[in-house]
Amino acid sequence: MNDETDFSIPVLGKCGIPSPIVLSTKTGDSQANYVADDEFVRFDVDARAGDQGSLDRAHMFEKAGPRQMIFFSPSHVHAGIVTCGGLCPGINDVIRAIVRCLWFRYGVRRITGIRYGYRGFLPEFNIGTRPLDPEAVDEVHKVGGTFLGSSRGGGDRVSDIVDSIERLNLNMLFTIGGDGTQKGAVAIAEEIERRDLKIAVVGIPKTIDNDLSFVDRTFGFETAVAKAAEAVTAAHVEAHSAMNGIGLVKLMGRESGFIAVHTVLAVHEANFVLIPEVPFEIDGPNGFLRHLEDRVARRSHAVVVVAEGAGQEFLKAEGVDASGNPKLGDVGVYLRDRIIDHFKKKGLDATVKYIDPSYMVRSSPAIPTDSVYCERLGNNAAHAAMAGRTKLLIGMVHGQFVHIPVKAAVSKRNYVDPEGALWRDAVDATQQPPVMLNPR
Amino acid sequence: MNDETDFSIPVLGKCGIPSPIVLSTKTGDSQANYVADDEFVRFDVDARAGDQGSLDRAHMFEKAGPRQMIFFSPSHVHAGIVTCGGLCPGINDVIRAIVRCLWFRYGVRRITGIRYGYRGFLPEFNIGTRPLDPEAVDEVHKVGGTFLGSSRGGGDRVSDIVDSIERLNLNMLFTIGGDGTQKGAVAIAEEIERRDLKIAVVGIPKTIDNDLSFVDRTFGFETAVAKAAEAVTAAHVEAHSAMNGIGLVKLMGRESGFIAVHTVLAVHEANFVLIPEVPFEIDGPNGFLRHLEDRVARRSHAVVVVAEGAGQEFLKAEGVDASGNPKLGDVGVYLRDRIIDHFKKKGLDATVKYIDPSYMVRSSPAIPTDSVYCERLGNNAAHAAMAGRTKLLIGMVHGQFVHIPVKAAVSKRNYVDPEGALWRDAVDATQQPPVMLNPR
Amino acid sequence: MNDETDFSIPVLGKCGIPSPIVLSTKTGDSQANYVADDEFVRFDVDARAGDQGSLDRAHMFEKAGPRQMIFFSPSHVHAGIVTCGGLCPGINDVIRAIVRCLWFRYGVRRITGIRYGYRGFLPEFNIGTRPLDPEAVDEVHKVGGTFLGSSRGGGDRVSDIVDSIERLNLNMLFTIGGDGTQKGAVAIAEEIERRDLKIAVVGIPKTIDNDLSFVDRTFGFETAVAKAAEAVTAAHVEAHSAMNGIGLVKLMGRESGFIAVHTVLAVHEANFVLIPEVPFEIDGPNGFLRHLEDRVARRSHAVVVVAEGAGQEFLKAEGVDASGNPKLGDVGVYLRDRIIDHFKKKGLDATVKYIDPSYMVRSSPAIPTDSVYCERLGNNAAHAAMAGRTKLLIGMVHGQFVHIPVKAAVSKRNYVDPEGALWRDAVDATQQPPVMLNPR
Amino acid sequence: MNDETDFSIPVLGKCGIPSPIVLSTKTGDSQANYVADDEFVRFDVDARAGDQGSLDRAHMFEKAGPRQMIFFSPSHVHAGIVTCGGLCPGINDVIRAIVRCLWFRYGVRRITGIRYGYRGFLPEFNIGTRPLDPEAVDEVHKVGGTFLGSSRGGGDRVSDIVDSIERLNLNMLFTIGGDGTQKGAVAIAEEIERRDLKIAVVGIPKTIDNDLSFVDRTFGFETAVAKAAEAVTAAHVEAHSAMNGIGLVKLMGRESGFIAVHTVLAVHEANFVLIPEVPFEIDGPNGFLRHLEDRVARRSHAVVVVAEGAGQEFLKAEGVDASGNPKLGDVGVYLRDRIIDHFKKKGLDATVKYIDPSYMVRSSPAIPTDSVYCERLGNNAAHAAMAGRTKLLIGMVHGQFVHIPVKAAVSKRNYVDPEGALWRDAVDATQQPPVMLNPR
Repeated sequence: MNDETDFSIPVLGKCGIPSPIVLSTKTGDSQANYVADDEFVRFDVDARAGDQGSLDRAHMFEKAGPRQMIFFSPSHVHAGIVTCGGLCPGINDVIRAIVRCLWFRYGVRRITGIRYGYRGFLPEFNIGTRPLDPEAVDEVHKVGGTFLGSSRGGGDRVSDIVDSIERLNLNMLFTIGGDGTQKGAVAIAEEIERRDLKIAVVGIPKTIDNDLSFVDRTFGFETAVAKAAEAVTAAHVEAHSAMNGIGLVKLMGRESGFIAVHTVLAVHEANFVLIPEVPFEIDGPNGFLRHLEDRVARRSHAVVVVAEGAGQEFLKAEGVDASGNPKLGDVGVYLRDRIIDHFKKKGLDATVKYIDPSYMVRSSPAIPTDSVYCERLGNNAAHAAMAGRTKLLIGMVHGQFVHIPVKAAVSKRNYVDPEGALWRDAVDATQQPPVMLNPR
Repeated sequence: MNDETDFSIPVLGKCGIPSPIVLSTKTGDSQANYVADDEFVRFDVDARAGDQGSLDRAHMFEKAGPRQMIFFSPSHVHAGIVTCGGLCPGINDVIRAIVRCLWFRYGVRRITGIRYGYRGFLPEFNIGTRPLDPEAVDEVHKVGGTFLGSSRGGGDRVSDIVDSIERLNLNMLFTIGGDGTQKGAVAIAEEIERRDLKIAVVGIPKTIDNDLSFVDRTFGFETAVAKAAEAVTAAHVEAHSAMNGIGLVKLMGRESGFIAVHTVLAVHEANFVLIPEVPFEIDGPNGFLRHLEDRVARRSHAVVVVAEGAGQEFLKAEGVDASGNPKLGDVGVYLRDRIIDHFKKKGLDATVKYIDPSYMVRSSPAIPTDSVYCERLGNNAAHAAMAGRTKLLIGMVHGQFVHIPVKAAVSKRNYVDPEGALWRDAVDATQQPPVMLNPR
Repeated sequence: MNDETDFSIPVLGKCGIPSPIVLSTKTGDSQANYVADDEFVRFDVDARAGDQGSLDRAHMFEKAGPRQMIFFSPSHVHAGIVTCGGLCPGINDVIRAIVRCLWFRYGVRRITGIRYGYRGFLPEFNIGTRPLDPEAVDEVHKVGGTFLGSSRGGGDRVSDIVDSIERLNLNMLFTIGGDGTQKGAVAIAEEIERRDLKIAVVGIPKTIDNDLSFVDRTFGFETAVAKAAEAVTAAHVEAHSAMNGIGLVKLMGRESGFIAVHTVLAVHEANFVLIPEVPFEIDGPNGFLRHLEDRVARRSHAVVVVAEGAGQEFLKAEGVDASGNPKLGDVGVYLRDRIIDHFKKKGLDATVKYIDPSYMVRSSPAIPTDSVYCERLGNNAAHAAMAGRTKLLIGMVHGQFVHIPVKAAVSKRNYVDPEGALWRDAVDATQQPPVMLNPR
Repeated sequence: MNDETDFSIPVLGKCGIPSPIVLSTKTGDSQANYVADDEFVRFDVDARAGDQGSLDRAHMFEKAGPRQMIFFSPSHVHAGIVTCGGLCPGINDVIRAIVRCLWFRYGVRRITGIRYGYRGFLPEFNIGTRPLDPEAVDEVHKVGGTFLGSSRGGGDRVSDIVDSIERLNLNMLFTIGGDGTQKGAVAIAEEIERRDLKIAVVGIPKTIDNDLSFVDRTFGFETAVAKAAEAVTAAHVEAHSAMNGIGLVKLMGRESGFIAVHTVLAVHEANFVLIPEVPFEIDGPNGFLRHLEDRVARRSHAVVVVAEGAGQEFLKAEGVDASGNPKLGDVGVYLRDRIIDHFKKKGLDATVKYIDPSYMVRSSPAIPTDSVYCERLGNNAAHAAMAGRTKLLIGMVHGQFVHIPVKAAVSKRNYVDPEGALWRDAVDATQQPPVMLNPR
């Protein structure tokens, strides 16, 4: 069984310490219970009549939550929290929940915020840390971003980071970040193992694109859709108020178009949605521009939503950014210019209004449903670390919080399935042609 | 097998008409597919190590979505839509989606809105109907409530209603409403069978309390939490700004405290949450008032959230309302008065601010994530009816849209499990005593 | 000339200290200037052709702003800030602005927050104070209410308060509060004079009802209208979704109906607005209920907005509250019951939904335009105190910040003029009968 | 007396028709009154002690409002409404108010919407008109933009426009637009005079920049500040979350920096505000970049707000746009690039996040206070036209609605006075250097 399909979670050692959290150990007494180590959530739910689906161990996730016996003695715990990569609504909620759960439920009194991502561990930046307690995090969730600061990259400086972790005497590290961050976290955990240290590394996956496999959704995604919807509504108003008005909105979505798709379903006012998962052509008799022209001719205005990763084949971006992600060409600006050119060439008088709301989307504070999710992610991360779990992510699967091995989670992204119901409903909502490719 | 566990969905007859919706019939071509009749979603996902859970047919729901072959010829369809019971965010979104899916995807041209709930079918009210088309519903989702109007009750007037359905020549009825409405819908469908008519009855379950079994959540619930959070924040500001300030908020939740629980998790500012599922005492050494007093003594202010159905044993409400629900005593006013009395008796100078935001919560337009959900519920309801399904509800189970037999859905409510993770996290968030019952 | 018409502002003594704020002393150099002591703003702007209006000194307000020469040496200043009475959006913004202006512009380092209103000065409550600096107020404006706490009354305990001021060694007191608070502040200032102390008392008038004479508007008013509008919109949705639905909203406005009137102008969805300034009858052929009945008969629904001080003659409230305001009967509940009775007696099936959003309105954080206003009120209050002004309020008159003598300001309230343009436009907006009084 | 100082308003002829609006003609009866022709509002309110200010007729504005005797017989009226230029919050509110006032108060039944600005009058575009009644405008205020459509320019095609007006048989034209639009309206009115027609031309000034002389503010401005504040908050979150993070926001303000200045006062989180009225240098020892570098060194992050018309001397824009406004270079992109270069050259690792929220700001629906203002502007425009006034704008001066001659209004813009209180408070709020010019 390879790493990607082994869903078991490493534990630092025997959990021999009774949890200071007092819960019930029996069912039927109307009181909250501990989670037992043999409770799982089955991932696969699709079935065909007469075929119940495969049920092997690989598709079961360990349930998250407080254990009756824990690994760390709370008075010995020194927890570190680090936030990496781009902004996403809800980061401060997650930090707050971890701090409060450790402090109030377990009695942990040493919690340290690492500043500006993995850089905060690197000696050359010489960045101080920040002590955390409930007072320090009390109001942080009312503001977007991360009050600890963030940065990209640095996760490959494994040895330096573990040196720093040792210097700080941390025995618990919470990493809030995306793919690159969590891969870095695994490397850190492996170096920790090599040094024979007992340090739990627990990740809270952050990807505003919602492209993490297995989980129901990632935190911040619902907020992102809510804010993105405002931009699309603005584009619609602009388009509708002008003669042959065209509103164009670029939304996040490097490889997965979930934000774009959910936003057009929410707003009902987009006529085209372009995502990385569904190929399209721009030119030609069945290309996007031709269909856009038809729509404008019919209705005098149009709204187009494009995910940033769509249509990259038309651009010539090269290299990777500091997080190690391939650099993207700016499809929004490209499409804007192509649309303007197209209508000009046709002698049509179109007004194109282009909106890129990315910073306003990602810097927003979490909406209430995301706050709930972040609160519970943070609590469960604290429970996992106290129980000595390591190299895992916290996620929600079928409404329940579970432990996901980092390697399984990062082995493949989640995509909008072009053959699935979500994309089908998006095509319905926009009434765009199901295929915008030219016959060969 | 009794009704409650038979999850198969009745079909009006053979689906012999090719759908006008053009989708792909093969996988791997990156184009959206029809849904096949043998696709199911497994409901149970909890498992213990070494025990994969039972997998019998009863726990599988038929997948919703467009079928390749349908029952009704679109040109023969006359669809009716009725909205019943109390307001809930998103009703207009659902109506809009049904109308647009029938019109644009299937080419249906006769759609009729029934006004003011089941009353709209009753001769003595003499209420006209309202023709619906995409133009009529274009902007309705921007406003809360139901533009068709609603009322309570009437679902027991089965014979009159079916007479009216026959007079109107409907062969498809969409019922957007709660428990009572859907039980009425089943009775209507049974009368339809008795009269040997071919009329599909498809329900979209509406319960702001989120107390419907099986489904991930009900539409409008996330909006309700978002609006309820504003009320709790207001209560917190009031409480915090006064000496011994106490903010008390009554939220919806007749039998299930989901709104209250999610709201306290979202807001982080409530110190007590009282729900119908978890018994508590008001007086006595371990009663609520004693703990409230302690909290105020410690921190000079407190915030209390109570679900409307909590603590009904302290009140003397009798009878049922027009929807057939047991009447509830007003626990908000009761608690307010008890708190004021308690502090007065103790010679403590407390300021109690009571907020009941119910109408402002339920009349809100849907937030974007609810809009997405409503859009997809409506689409799938239209697909189900066109495929001749009847006596079913549309719901989302593990992220997928499915057909749920009405009888199974209404056989038991969904509750906040006092022994489960959600309640445990709520107790953590409020830091209230896990048990507020006096020793006997 | 009596107090109410003498608009000159008392000064504690000669301003002999150069301001640490560096501004320009000449015009034409494109740099901000000091305000000179002989700059005034004329209040009266109404004129008839051939009559330019009276121009005597009494109708001129001294301009607010930084003076070149000030009274207090910044290093000797110890400022106190107290917030009294009911909540109003923007209080924290005002506190923040005072603290920051004193600290950053003048270099004042001793600023003390008095907690829970005038009570914070009274020995029997034994409430500690709270040191204030820019750090302490940095984020307070993001939350509603007053982070210093507030309470009603206590302003008549003049001697105790001045004792406390002396004990604290304050030489500057900022009072953020309503009528009663500011009358108390004058009494305090007079006691200060009797004791021959040099302590500036500067008021920032707080009245959510916008009933302060002379000023363009009071802070928090625009926010109140924005939040009240949400409640009226909710009432409209409820009314519109029910058969013969009637939405009733009670808004603030003890003696002046500005909030109610502006809200119905903002929302466009109310059919009746009842305010204290315009008498109406409830019964009889030209009474409110008759007109409501007609409206519902015509349009099947209606929305009614009532200011809390309207129709008090129908209620039997007695006594005064802790702030010294006459107690009001609850006109919202009264009207609700009268409407229900009326329709029941007529055998009409009406659904009445009553909303009282007061706490949610007044606890809201300030909207941006109110934040701007609060910021500038606070700055100008700091400038006034530093220049030794006392017994004054800061207000905006014709877009300019001025010093208003407390006695002139509290001598009469501002009312909605039943013969003026604002009320006329409100009657237009609701299309209610201009007069709802029965012929005698 | 030249046009710019003659504040009298032309009237088409004798007002000999009694108004259908029934108001009171006496004071003291608590009923709303007509406005008399000799009621004025004095504009100048600044005074020096011993100098009451000049009081000549030129500084008096005629009060707006319903007259007892009107010029047009309502049954003969055919009103046209046209919206021109860029979007601004509240346009639909204004249209709605005009239509409803004409319809409900005066009984006018012929109201026509001209589509897409002055183009709607031009034969070559062949754009149809749109009949307007209360039903058509009922919900339009809930959406931003203009539902009539808008375009730039065309106002110089005077003869064609008046031909079209004649063809349509309009005797009343409401022009909602900016400077260029209103200058066009005067030319149209003059051509109307030349043709000896009796057609009232009434303007409602639309300038989101708030740069109209005389008036308290222009409609949409408060909404613009509210939306702009969201962008600056986002920039602050981005800046604060990154090491040496710099947030840069470009806001509207071609020649006047009111939006930028009010926004930084509202948000409290900007460190620099650059406006067209206050010259600054970018380079050099006292230039902007140097001060930005200092700020970042001190506090690790900074937020910069720039009005679009600021710093145009550093750019090389040429020509005019379709509205006749000089084209602006993009100071936002320019500053962004200059900042990035500067920090790179200094070897400093800065992260610059640039936000241009213009379309999201201007396409927003009006906030409640702006809705109130628009409602009253529209009502008063209808009253003015019915009373035969022409070549005027409706505006609010010192809280009262007045008639402003177009020529006076467009003769000079309103600017942020660099020597005045508003700019002084903005400099205080940002704590930026009062002067960023290098010594010569």
